[in-house]
Amino acid sequence: MDFAATKALFHLPKGVIYLDGNSLGPLPKAAAARIARAVGDEWGEMLITGWNMAGWMAQPRALGDRIGRLVGAPPGYTVIGDTLSVKVYQALAAALALRPGRKVILSDTGNFPSDLYMAEGLIEGFGRGHVLKTVDPEEVATQIGEDVAVLMLTEVDYRTGRMHDMARLTARAHAAGALTVWDLAHSAGAIPVDLTGAKADFAVGCTYKYLNAGPGAPAFIYVAPEHADTVRPALSGWLGHDAPFAFEPHYRPGTGIERMRVGTPPVLQMAALEAALDIWDGVDMSALRARSIELTELFIAEVDAACPSLTLNSPRDPALRGSQVALRHPEAYAVMQALIARGVIGDFRAPDNLRFGFTPLYIGAAEVRRAVRILADILDNRLWDVTAYKTRATVT
Amino acid sequence: MDFAATKALFHLPKGVIYLDGNSLGPLPKAAAARIARAVGDEWGEMLITGWNMAGWMAQPRALGDRIGRLVGAPPGYTVIGDTLSVKVYQALAAALALRPGRKVILSDTGNFPSDLYMAEGLIEGFGRGHVLKTVDPEEVATQIGEDVAVLMLTEVDYRTGRMHDMARLTARAHAAGALTVWDLAHSAGAIPVDLTGAKADFAVGCTYKYLNAGPGAPAFIYVAPEHADTVRPALSGWLGHDAPFAFEPHYRPGTGIERMRVGTPPVLQMAALEAALDIWDGVDMSALRARSIELTELFIAEVDAACPSLTLNSPRDPALRGSQVALRHPEAYAVMQALIARGVIGDFRAPDNLRFGFTPLYIGAAEVRRAVRILADILDNRLWDVTAYKTRATVT
Repeated sequence: MDFAATKALFHLPKGVIYLDGNSLGPLPKAAAARIARAVGDEWGEMLITGWNMAGWMAQPRALGDRIGRLVGAPPGYTVIGDTLSVKVYQALAAALALRPGRKVILSDTGNFPSDLYMAEGLIEGFGRGHVLKTVDPEEVATQIGEDVAVLMLTEVDYRTGRMHDMARLTARAHAAGALTVWDLAHSAGAIPVDLTGAKADFAVGCTYKYLNAGPGAPAFIYVAPEHADTVRPALSGWLGHDAPFAFEPHYRPGTGIERMRVGTPPVLQMAALEAALDIWDGVDMSALRARSIELTELFIAEVDAACPSLTLNSPRDPALRGSQVALRHPEAYAVMQALIARGVIGDFRAPDNLRFGFTPLYIGAAEVRRAVRILADILDNRLWDVTAYKTRATVT
Repeated sequence: MDFAATKALFHLPKGVIYLDGNSLGPLPKAAAARIARAVGDEWGEMLITGWNMAGWMAQPRALGDRIGRLVGAPPGYTVIGDTLSVKVYQALAAALALRPGRKVILSDTGNFPSDLYMAEGLIEGFGRGHVLKTVDPEEVATQIGEDVAVLMLTEVDYRTGRMHDMARLTARAHAAGALTVWDLAHSAGAIPVDLTGAKADFAVGCTYKYLNAGPGAPAFIYVAPEHADTVRPALSGWLGHDAPFAFEPHYRPGTGIERMRVGTPPVLQMAALEAALDIWDGVDMSALRARSIELTELFIAEVDAACPSLTLNSPRDPALRGSQVALRHPEAYAVMQALIARGVIGDFRAPDNLRFGFTPLYIGAAEVRRAVRILADILDNRLWDVTAYKTRATVT
């Protein structure tokens, strides 16, 4: 892998070291022209005929398959659309319906809150004595009892980067008669994922983090081949119907993954996703993983040496860590503001985490070293101790 | 209203008479630059800080209020996001939860199929003996019994343009103790709507038809002030949480309409919507309605005179008709293909409808007359009777 070549494919603002690609990836240079084409040549010139002529209607499946390759899904079982929260709901509802006698959704405290919130909303509406049980990440394996309908986990913890063993936990879940819903928000494009090998039942993820498809880019959903033709999609919209344009009075699910589509796909966001995936099509995930580990190892070593006031809040063993590193500091919010003011962009995650994402496609060792030098300078000289940095905005 | 001035604000392909703005509105010229700014100056330069600096996070509410003005909603009770099908589900689930003792969702056969499908999916999951009852549009008023929890209707029929009397049916529903969910897909930007005056409980709509926000543009949802702080949103995502970035373990709904937000909003599509609404901000809906009626009346009169083989499938009384006209023909699909080949774009709706939308912002009397001349020529000379026109593509 030539990571200098991939770096040249992104627009990175001058003077910025961007360690927040795990929150929002940067702009692929080709995306601007691709989006402009979707606007001018497609929407502008083709108007309604763009659904066929520009292929808009077929894109959710085609884009889904390109993501599928990155996460070990066979072609035909991944589709994009909606937001990740909506796809979590759909996967969870579908999985619950396949285990009607069981009442427990098992998750962990390291799951992204929106996944837990969606489960709470689902239970409040659908629930017939269902409960959401959240345990510590380390306890998940021992808590998968015969009452568990669905094990719902995010593979890589959004704060700490701690990784679950997808294959092992899925095997445990299956042994107990439960199904699995894996959230790949911090996995897709960050680490090698093998949904097929792990025998995952459902998976969901977003495309605006490591995949670089832009703010508000659509989510994706995977349904394993053995479930794809039997699940009910819960959100049974017309584009998941077997014959959307027949306008039949009753819902009939489409073939396989088609049924997980809901409404009209976001054409402009799909154009950005398409340009982003053009870069990913050439990426070997094991080479990317090797480089990612080099970068996180380097970052941790440099922080250990230069920033004694910080505590590592990620696994020290790289085999247990995704492509991000969290560091704790009592004034993490202010420290991150000071960093951003110096051009090092990471993010703050409550209550006291500085979070940094490492994205080999456009971040190298030089940026890692420079970021730590600036971080050390801010800590050594208490440059974060300024009222302006301590005043929290609504969104970080 | 100066409709020549508004027409100049749109890009309309040369040689095309576009009578399908009720399916996908054309490109506002300013949208291309606005989207390019969102891509280059916002995503490209601001990266993650765009959520605050470019105001992305606040846009769903701001854009919602600008749509709200067009449909008679007070500021603060409309928000954009997701697709229309998802918003139908959310409104319906929220309404059902407010009427726990009642089991009937009443709708009509003129509703858009996806609304009915979403209701079916909701019942299949949430249902505790709930049923979806669909009656003929003319029978709705007499079918609102004491068992009805929610009256769910699309105000303007997507095929025929037949309008329901929102105020009268809402009053009937309330008298029977039921709530209302109004789909404004073919109303917003087409006819004056007064959600407040009609005392509508919930309303949803899309922005890619008459509002011209582009393919896959987000939907909107309105919740009446008396419900906004009590409803449960069903799809309880993190951006509807009272404190999304506190990452609390349990869901707490945000204030009022905020809770109907779910996941990350589509920033590129919002940029297009913003540009589209810049045009609408100057539009007086009663002037637009007067012009719309002139155009549909002219179209029907010309068709009556020139196309004896067509049957009007819309109300002849303009007071009962939205901003579209449907005409029946046994070979409607082939006729529409022939029309499109001649530059007149409308659409086909099964089983035998030619559907034409009339959008005063960029369509005038000259286009209407010319479209009918071409239609008459095609019918008089059986120009539709060509194999290529009869072969149906997947999407029309």
